[in-house]
Amino acid sequence: MTPVPNSFPSPLPPLPVGIHLPGGHGLDPSVPPNTTQGFHLNHLMLRIRDPSESLHFYIDLMGLRTVFAMNTGPCSIYYLGHPQTDAERADPKLYAQNTVSNDVLTTTKGLIELVHIHGTEKLSKEEYKLHNGNVAPFLGFGHVGFTVPDVPIALERLRESGVKVLKDVGVAERENVPITEWEMEKFGVGIGELAEGYRHVLSQIGFVEDPNGYWIELVPQNMK
Amino acid sequence: MTPVPNSFPSPLPPLPVGIHLPGGHGLDPSVPPNTTQGFHLNHLMLRIRDPSESLHFYIDLMGLRTVFAMNTGPCSIYYLGHPQTDAERADPKLYAQNTVSNDVLTTTKGLIELVHIHGTEKLSKEEYKLHNGNVAPFLGFGHVGFTVPDVPIALERLRESGVKVLKDVGVAERENVPITEWEMEKFGVGIGELAEGYRHVLSQIGFVEDPNGYWIELVPQNMK
Repeated sequence: MTPVPNSFPSPLPPLPVGIHLPGGHGLDPSVPPNTTQGFHLNHLMLRIRDPSESLHFYIDLMGLRTVFAMNTGPCSIYYLGHPQTDAERADPKLYAQNTVSNDVLTTTKGLIELVHIHGTEKLSKEEYKLHNGNVAPFLGFGHVGFTVPDVPIALERLRESGVKVLKDVGVAERENVPITEWEMEKFGVGIGELAEGYRHVLSQIGFVEDPNGYWIELVPQNMK
Repeated sequence: MTPVPNSFPSPLPPLPVGIHLPGGHGLDPSVPPNTTQGFHLNHLMLRIRDPSESLHFYIDLMGLRTVFAMNTGPCSIYYLGHPQTDAERADPKLYAQNTVSNDVLTTTKGLIELVHIHGTEKLSKEEYKLHNGNVAPFLGFGHVGFTVPDVPIALERLRESGVKVLKDVGVAERENVPITEWEMEKFGVGIGELAEGYRHVLSQIGFVEDPNGYWIELVPQNMK
């Protein structure tokens, strides 16, 4: 076997500014036979401190339900996903039954895996501080993006349940994009104004904070 | 509106060890009307340093294709997903066309958003170091989980293209679970042996590293 060639030259030419570009650079190759057919982006994994808090957030507030959980010994893992039908929404056990078989589970997308290391729930948030990836210089992971039928209604329900709203709709400024002062000052990167085409999108998007400080994005399904 | 009650008491009773539990604690409520119906877990967002490297990894090697990209001014964002049909795999532009409309995009799951702050590609990996969430004490995000038809074949193809394999199949030890020495020593949490039922699963799973050091999990679709 030989290394797979890189379809993307370095440096890549900059994309035209402020335009929604289907297919991006237009450099993506067709998928070669016998390579990645059948691959699924199944889940992302986040550490949590206290399962009572995080299950409340993702299940009661964000609408996910438990597919399965496993106590591995030193930690417990929870796989959550969204029920797909009225019957599954009425009966979370039915959703779990319908989804937990290996064939269904491994071809399902949009799951989140929460990992709770036993004992961290007894530590305070200050003692066992998880890092959300958005605070310089410890940048990396950005957010989990949910789409919702109506962002203002979703934000209102979350706010009423004590969730911190990081960005409301109607706002689209430089401080709402994931570029820190630290990066601009230290490296001189990420400079310049936001394109109008992007501000239009950003103004319709909300952000809230989960119980461990991870950023949760709410994207409208009725984007204008 | 009143706060949504928490369905999960604190502390939650420990789950039985080493058993795959559909529905987890069995405490999930049915979904109340007019709350989270229609919510989708659409994507996760990761910062990247150099789009040439990261698009090569996620597109050429992991089989994703570009739905759309946008240059916002100071940064560019890329939304990637897996083509669903032979026709889409043969023609990535068709996949983009089929997926990019607002209705389809916002009800699609299993997407990844990569954010490139312009200029970081000129910095070295040491200068602009992104944090993968798995190195103490900067713990948080864990990994992106892909399911694949055959983990050893997938690992071999990645290895031949220079990808670092973090965990091969056939291995299932304490150091392969996301609990650091730091947590055990500092807090006394996450102690104890791995349950046999979990080691059986873990031994079939692979982990590789993406170009920015993020952990990528490969879960077999033919789990035994």
